[in-house]
Amino acid sequence: MSKSLTKREEDYSKWYNELVVKADLAENSAVRGCMVIKPYGYAIWEKMQAELDRMFKETGHQNAYFPLFVPKSLFEAEEKNAEGFAKECAVVTHYRLQNDPENPGKLRVDPEAKLEEELVVRPTSEAIIWSTYKGWIQSYRDLPLLINQWANVVRWEMRTRLFLRTSEFLWQEGHTAHASKSEAVAEAKQMQHVYATFAEEFMAMPVVKGVKSDSERFAGAEDTYTIEALMQDGKALQAGTSHFLGQNFAEAFDVKFTNKDGKQEYVWATSWGVSTRLIGGLIMTHSDDFGLVLPPKLAPIQVVFVPIYKGEDQLLLLSEKIQTYVSAFKKLGISVKYDDRDTLRPGAKFAEYELKGVPVRIAMGSRDLENNTVEVARRDTLTKESISQDNLVTYVSELLEKIQINLFDTALQFRNNHITQVNSMDEFKDVIENKGGFVAAHWDGTAETEEKIKELTKATIRCIPNDAIEEAGNCVFTGESSSKRVLFAKAY
Amino acid sequence: MSKSLTKREEDYSKWYNELVVKADLAENSAVRGCMVIKPYGYAIWEKMQAELDRMFKETGHQNAYFPLFVPKSLFEAEEKNAEGFAKECAVVTHYRLQNDPENPGKLRVDPEAKLEEELVVRPTSEAIIWSTYKGWIQSYRDLPLLINQWANVVRWEMRTRLFLRTSEFLWQEGHTAHASKSEAVAEAKQMQHVYATFAEEFMAMPVVKGVKSDSERFAGAEDTYTIEALMQDGKALQAGTSHFLGQNFAEAFDVKFTNKDGKQEYVWATSWGVSTRLIGGLIMTHSDDFGLVLPPKLAPIQVVFVPIYKGEDQLLLLSEKIQTYVSAFKKLGISVKYDDRDTLRPGAKFAEYELKGVPVRIAMGSRDLENNTVEVARRDTLTKESISQDNLVTYVSELLEKIQINLFDTALQFRNNHITQVNSMDEFKDVIENKGGFVAAHWDGTAETEEKIKELTKATIRCIPNDAIEEAGNCVFTGESSSKRVLFAKAY
Repeated sequence: MSKSLTKREEDYSKWYNELVVKADLAENSAVRGCMVIKPYGYAIWEKMQAELDRMFKETGHQNAYFPLFVPKSLFEAEEKNAEGFAKECAVVTHYRLQNDPENPGKLRVDPEAKLEEELVVRPTSEAIIWSTYKGWIQSYRDLPLLINQWANVVRWEMRTRLFLRTSEFLWQEGHTAHASKSEAVAEAKQMQHVYATFAEEFMAMPVVKGVKSDSERFAGAEDTYTIEALMQDGKALQAGTSHFLGQNFAEAFDVKFTNKDGKQEYVWATSWGVSTRLIGGLIMTHSDDFGLVLPPKLAPIQVVFVPIYKGEDQLLLLSEKIQTYVSAFKKLGISVKYDDRDTLRPGAKFAEYELKGVPVRIAMGSRDLENNTVEVARRDTLTKESISQDNLVTYVSELLEKIQINLFDTALQFRNNHITQVNSMDEFKDVIENKGGFVAAHWDGTAETEEKIKELTKATIRCIPNDAIEEAGNCVFTGESSSKRVLFAKAY
Repeated sequence: MSKSLTKREEDYSKWYNELVVKADLAENSAVRGCMVIKPYGYAIWEKMQAELDRMFKETGHQNAYFPLFVPKSLFEAEEKNAEGFAKECAVVTHYRLQNDPENPGKLRVDPEAKLEEELVVRPTSEAIIWSTYKGWIQSYRDLPLLINQWANVVRWEMRTRLFLRTSEFLWQEGHTAHASKSEAVAEAKQMQHVYATFAEEFMAMPVVKGVKSDSERFAGAEDTYTIEALMQDGKALQAGTSHFLGQNFAEAFDVKFTNKDGKQEYVWATSWGVSTRLIGGLIMTHSDDFGLVLPPKLAPIQVVFVPIYKGEDQLLLLSEKIQTYVSAFKKLGISVKYDDRDTLRPGAKFAEYELKGVPVRIAMGSRDLENNTVEVARRDTLTKESISQDNLVTYVSELLEKIQINLFDTALQFRNNHITQVNSMDEFKDVIENKGGFVAAHWDGTAETEEKIKELTKATIRCIPNDAIEEAGNCVFTGESSSKRVLFAKAY
């Protein structure tokens, strides 16, 4: 941890990769494309989970758990709706290893332990869940069925990056069943709203809510509602999606219900998910050249105390005082750490907590004891202030709220400065190449134009924003008429 | 849910299987040996997780996440220590499916997408974790490393039963690394103690703490500390184990640290785990012929209100009153449900909540409104009482504590009545065959005798209890001298 980080300006991608490892969030593992989420990174995920889980339950959802494996035949049924996963899935073919007769000390699959039907490690659980729902749903009384699952999923990605794209990742997947189209659409929109609220209020990460174009939507969905965030390098990050699935999965798995009039109908479905990818978004929204910057609401350690002392006697006096503040913070539910290690100098500790993004650092020395002061350092602004100890607890408690708001405001300003309206392809290319961010442009609504623009600029349609205003215009590429602007960007 | 349960006396195993399904806890899935944990069952697991997680963190552990897959070569290295898992593991050999040219509409593994090295779906994570720890541990300053993981694991069991033995199950696995043998042994014992406290205080399930015999211990462990519970049918259930692993895994994965004297040493290890199997133990400790009986501390619904009414007007008056109590209970953190469904009669609701083991059921009718009373029914004793509404909240709050204690006391009495000292093989067989439970017998300490007794009686040594008293005696099988009794039982 002694060597400094690559600067963002030099190489944003390298900065990100280094930061994830140096800040002890995650690392690559012995398994290609799979990561180890280290305790500090996992603590952030636990905080995210706790808030999301609370929000899901407040909106009437219950958790359940479905099998890791999807029999190939169910996968085939789903494939009619959701092509693509077959090309990147881990397949279990055997259920036993045995000693390899040709290589003593080595193991090989036992050829006699071949499965009758191959099992796919779930890349997503629509197939296994809808084949289960068939047994759970008979009547309108069984609906709505509002279920969420916290789970690991596997997609055999060829190019992986810690948190952003890994072969195995952790996520939640909601799968709901409804008696009417309007109810399912309302559910899908509600969950988009829940995700947006979580992103903005907890991650301090502003998002655009919108709907995906036909080409970008989840195969098998009729509409994909998305939240799109903007990273510091001007690239967009799809941070969460909520799908209105129509009756596609109900038809694929023959899930019907008897409605109030006694007639059989296919069930209407939604699914929605966010993953450990959010941690990547969190990092690239707030962090700087000195390390992580974490919003207080998701920081595993919100406040750290560092004593500045010479000799055991000074340390004892300082510790006594600091421990009273530690207790006071804990009583308020503030997560606080007292770092009295004698193996590191204060300067090294300061650098470590900067790297790890602890929102507030409080240093106390012998002179502070005499003067009834402490030095309070903010991670977001990198500023320090000497303040009286008299109102320390209230001061810090309010400071944490201020930091949360400041991070959101800063990110919002950056994001808003990076939504650029363009009216020609030259402008479009100029913005994408030189400024980055979202480009708001008129589009003729065809997949062909979308594809051509992607070829020319590498930018894709991130979404058609929910709040796009009606505005007569002409497609930036074909000149065809258009009634609103959509958002393009290069994306992770 | 209309048909009644098989009686326990008739067929305990059938009773269990029916109950798990009828009480909406879990069901078999489309994947052989894997279960779907339904929302009601998962809610119990969430409550277990929350308490265990709190206890782990209070004892200094942090959560992390390691890959689902173990490369075969790591598995080979581990196999030297822990034989057995190779015989029952799911093996990923390919990373892609493709359209089957011979069967239109069907998929097959793409022969060109064969993995260079097969991946084993983790049956336990020692191998992947210790290969990771190698990079994390250099010096004594990096120790102890106290890490836990909540995860799914897969063991390809041939005979499965919901919760008790499934091919995929959910568990937590702690993996700790220490600088000294004594510290590692203390950790393993501490976690046995944590498990016992959880089992007794939250599950109301009494357990014997003890150590496993050589034959029953985890391969690769030097000592396995276990908690053993007794089910109503007289069979024992291993409910949690904590292993002192010595330096076996450190040697297998070459994990050394520099001690305070600057010398290189192998690290000392422990691992410990409990799983969704605990839910099976919970069911078989308390439930009866009417359904589940849940201890209040783990019940997803602790109190349910059922209105007894004729017509909409009566319901409105009752609802108004009941809602005030619902709010009052919620304020105290009591999980309460108001069941005002008009599709079921009160009697059917009563049966449903009996089946689902809700600890306290409160019925309120129009006469209760007049008389300021309610009818409170206890699930544990199946008794009802009409009480005044005046102190309802306090009364129920105290009643929940009473029920928790009563369940533990009843189970403890049953368990204690089923620990039988025997001094001959005739007595041994008689007890095992006719009474069941634990048999406390002298044993000569050899694996041969253990095996012979198992052949004769199907009973195995569950543990050598921590609190076994020194007592001169003779092995019940060979007559060799022995200094203490060990516990035998048939087991799940």
